Amino acid sequence: MLPDALKKLIHELAKLPGVGPRGAERIALHLITDGKNSAPVFADAISCALSDVGFCDICGALSRKGEHCGVCANPARDKTKICIVEKPLDAVAVERSGVYGGVYHVLGGVLSPIEGITPDDLKIPELLSRIDKDCVTEVIVATNPSAEGDVTASYIAEELKPLGVKATRLARGLPSGGQVDYADSDTLEMAMANRFEL
Amino acid sequence: MLPDALKKLIHELAKLPGVGPRGAERIALHLITDGKNSAPVFADAISCALSDVGFCDICGALSRKGEHCGVCANPARDKTKICIVEKPLDAVAVERSGVYGGVYHVLGGVLSPIEGITPDDLKIPELLSRIDKDCVTEVIVATNPSAEGDVTASYIAEELKPLGVKATRLARGLPSGGQVDYADSDTLEMAMANRFEL
Repeated sequence: MLPDALKKLIHELAKLPGVGPRGAERIALHLITDGKNSAPVFADAISCALSDVGFCDICGALSRKGEHCGVCANPARDKTKICIVEKPLDAVAVERSGVYGGVYHVLGGVLSPIEGITPDDLKIPELLSRIDKDCVTEVIVATNPSAEGDVTASYIAEELKPLGVKATRLARGLPSGGQVDYADSDTLEMAMANRFEL
Repeated sequence: MLPDALKKLIHELAKLPGVGPRGAERIALHLITDGKNSAPVFADAISCALSDVGFCDICGALSRKGEHCGVCANPARDKTKICIVEKPLDAVAVERSGVYGGVYHVLGGVLSPIEGITPDDLKIPELLSRIDKDCVTEVIVATNPSAEGDVTASYIAEELKPLGVKATRLARGLPSGGQVDYADSDTLEMAMANRFEL
């Protein structure tokens, strides 16, 4: 019942992260009906992003192709503090909170024996050379609060010990706006262990 | 922290139905990294769909531009039964179930005093003229099981009474694979009232 060109569009849409088969159908319909006027703009935005967006060759965060990212290029940022994240979007999230004045380092993943990801697959040598070059004093490991994220954080902390660099990890507990009855046991255990006095 | 071309792409993605701001970021990142090779294909699929896809001028369902839809063009389909749906995708869903051998009629919405949608805004005159022309014997009203969908169904049933055409409505009850404790009271009330003997 679906015309071929629409089937093709739905097929491409369903490849996108977080878009299921029904979501893809709805988006495709939107693009050829209500969103008809913005659809060419959208197609164009994809091409522009492909040609203009790259990654900072200092930290690996998002940047204009061939340029350093806004954080590395900003002389006001404290180069002696490095916040380590798994993916470029994690740095965007920390940046959005507006509480961090240091720089970033994108690892490109986490250690995972199951998926065969070893320290050599991550940007750990690049991290060590930045620490050496920029007289870094603190490394904040902001990998995800998962088993792999924790293992990666411990590995990095071990590597940094001989260098005399402080390694810290983002606090664990209940997320603001969250609900206690929705929290998993592990989160509650952490929240209990790190409870603070009022 | 985000390059302009990426901001623009995220902005366009966030306009799509079902895509929130974080989802838009993830999709944008996917398109310029892992999905880099399929991104131009995707941009192309949007343009093709815009130029090739139209709506059947008999029933309003999706079709190749300038052609009747697969159902209306199929001589094996029973033209004396019309299934009335709100949107083209609803017809796709019924078609997918494979249990219906009649044809469709896309209303283009439902009656809604709040949004000011009156019978004149829907394809009801077109429906009446098809009923007359094709000697239709049954109209199955498959508008959504919502207050507006029910009101629209009742309105259509009233209109059809003088014509001697049977009007039916899709059954109401628990969805297959659903869970009783997740069902709302209205659904349970319907399911109870229409319970069947085993």
